Amino acid sequence: MTWIDLPEDSPFGPDNLPLGVFRLGDEEPRIGAAIGDHLIDLAPVASAQMLDGAQLFAEPSLNKFLALGRPAWQATRTWLLELVRNTSERETVEPHLIRRDAVTMLMPFEVADYVDFYASEHHASNVGKLFRPDAEPLLPNWKHLPVGYHGRAGTVVASGTDILRPSGQRKAPDADAPTFGPSQRLDIEVELGYVVGTPSALGQPVSVDAFKDHVYGVVLVNDWSARDIQAWEYVPLGPFLGKSFATSISPWVVSLDALEASAVPLGRQDPAVLPYLAGENLTNFDITFEVRWNGEVVSRPPYRTMYWSAAQMLAHLSVNGASVRTGDLFASGTVSGPEPDQRGSFLELSWAGREPVTVNGEQRTFLLDGDEVTISAFATTATGTRIGLGEVSGRIVP
Amino acid sequence: MTWIDLPEDSPFGPDNLPLGVFRLGDEEPRIGAAIGDHLIDLAPVASAQMLDGAQLFAEPSLNKFLALGRPAWQATRTWLLELVRNTSERETVEPHLIRRDAVTMLMPFEVADYVDFYASEHHASNVGKLFRPDAEPLLPNWKHLPVGYHGRAGTVVASGTDILRPSGQRKAPDADAPTFGPSQRLDIEVELGYVVGTPSALGQPVSVDAFKDHVYGVVLVNDWSARDIQAWEYVPLGPFLGKSFATSISPWVVSLDALEASAVPLGRQDPAVLPYLAGENLTNFDITFEVRWNGEVVSRPPYRTMYWSAAQMLAHLSVNGASVRTGDLFASGTVSGPEPDQRGSFLELSWAGREPVTVNGEQRTFLLDGDEVTISAFATTATGTRIGLGEVSGRIVP
Repeated sequence: MTWIDLPEDSPFGPDNLPLGVFRLGDEEPRIGAAIGDHLIDLAPVASAQMLDGAQLFAEPSLNKFLALGRPAWQATRTWLLELVRNTSERETVEPHLIRRDAVTMLMPFEVADYVDFYASEHHASNVGKLFRPDAEPLLPNWKHLPVGYHGRAGTVVASGTDILRPSGQRKAPDADAPTFGPSQRLDIEVELGYVVGTPSALGQPVSVDAFKDHVYGVVLVNDWSARDIQAWEYVPLGPFLGKSFATSISPWVVSLDALEASAVPLGRQDPAVLPYLAGENLTNFDITFEVRWNGEVVSRPPYRTMYWSAAQMLAHLSVNGASVRTGDLFASGTVSGPEPDQRGSFLELSWAGREPVTVNGEQRTFLLDGDEVTISAFATTATGTRIGLGEVSGRIVP
Repeated sequence: MTWIDLPEDSPFGPDNLPLGVFRLGDEEPRIGAAIGDHLIDLAPVASAQMLDGAQLFAEPSLNKFLALGRPAWQATRTWLLELVRNTSERETVEPHLIRRDAVTMLMPFEVADYVDFYASEHHASNVGKLFRPDAEPLLPNWKHLPVGYHGRAGTVVASGTDILRPSGQRKAPDADAPTFGPSQRLDIEVELGYVVGTPSALGQPVSVDAFKDHVYGVVLVNDWSARDIQAWEYVPLGPFLGKSFATSISPWVVSLDALEASAVPLGRQDPAVLPYLAGENLTNFDITFEVRWNGEVVSRPPYRTMYWSAAQMLAHLSVNGASVRTGDLFASGTVSGPEPDQRGSFLELSWAGREPVTVNGEQRTFLLDGDEVTISAFATTATGTRIGLGEVSGRIVP
């Protein structure tokens, strides 16, 4: 398969080849492809081969590459596969293999607009039960459209960035007035994020079938959430400061072409969706997340249980004519499965704090200063191969 | 005052000097300052005077200028005032005066994040009465914090851009299921938008007193809204497709330094706000908008009646540590005064369609294809001088 030495069961095998932006020492940030414990420093390899557009790999973000569109993405994938498969490439590539533990990974792309969906039925039902105990858990619109909203693009940060505990207003149900102070209910949200490459024109909806023409690939997303701030502010215009302090993403962007082998049919949607959301081949991915809280695994949310397909999310967000731009990020919303140990937020895992989780022998509900959360994930193919999505982590500081 | 010939009562007098981006014929877009019926083509004038940073005026957006920060903004204003006041500058400047009717105005800056507030008590009360007739018009949080949410930055468009009627899902209250089609309740929202120049660091809130260090100036905003799409989608995460198809802004950015002469004290806030929102010198501006629907004036919303000050909006949006970036735009939310002819949306003017408005002899409620809406505004100073904010317009196309 490849002439490069790979650790057994590496998340970054020879069929994955995700792209990211790294910094080595004092050198300028540039683009690499991950394989095993290494990355390929793509700019010098592409230059040596006199590849068209070789200078795009010397950029400090993937945006210019993403803007090239699907034919160029596919050509690049073909080239990368040859680099790692053909022993004849070894002489050119080997001098530009860099150990991944020697570099710092940066934001892989500049985020244009950030949209967050709410596409897990288990998550939406859990939240409904917790926030509106006397009503139907799902609101009337939930199965007719993928509910979503815009988040803050400027505070999407690279994995590893410390998360400062946000302060804000919160009000206890029985209090007369709100108080101000650090959030007491700081939480995570485990999500999958889709990265748009090819822009669309204003007024031109992107159909469910055009999904792969516009979306390059995926990253892991931890949409940090301050539940107490959110609960007080969110009517009637939605979450704002409860979310906008930070959203962390993983450094390696895994292409849809690499993920394709893990596609599974979307589950049944009842009631039937409107025609602009319907498609013959709607899929999910067989991705399993793993949430480590201070090193201990507390949950394994399964992406294959999501109610809405990503192609439907993109078709919905653009059906009013809204354009998409290179660098747009849209995330799935919290991924929660049907089982208690498959929930993608501590709000759900601890049932709003009423049922603490045991972490390293302690009873825990929400995040304390010093806590570190790492979310990793892998996709499983029909043949059992694993395609790693890497990880996204962050530590809470006061 | 100035050696330049000015029409009487021009919105762009010699103390205003707003900046914008223009295109003249096939030439590259660049930055001008408006005065009377002309603009000063700043790049060649600055070059001729060998001004530091002259090349910033040859940029196709104001972002690099905005990023320079307040001392540079003030120095630029001083320079501009000298150009138009000192007869000795005439020889240098006059060859670079261009008639404004000879150029096309473009987007003045690239929008980073777009936030929309909801800061008019009259507007929020009207909407509350219309949407929740059986409850208190203002929700419990409204007087404790400036309610806001993120909008779509990528669909903020230049004045004059045609507005395609958006399609989407809407559901009549008595219908079993939603239907899909063009919005039947297309509306405007008259707003004032604040343009951020100086960025802030993640984790560092911007205090109410630091407002003028970060905000360069203002534009007019028409936040086009599809009320039927919005009504069905907005629970629980807020407006999304009902707003994201287009937001129009005016081409000329009026600096806070020019507007300062129109500052008026903020009205009383009861209950008292939390300390992070409190300030000694909170102000509004004495700005009057004028809404023309197919040429006929239908409303004159007064900005001085806004409940929340812009400095409070910025302090709130950053109090959780969220950073701001050059190009961030935050808008006031619909400006509505206490009188029926001061309402800043057709939803309110027509009381949700129940009380049609007479426009050119016809009874009208929401926007029809072919309708054109132009919002203009001027600020009034204590001495009665008017500072024009220009106008923002758009025409509905099917």
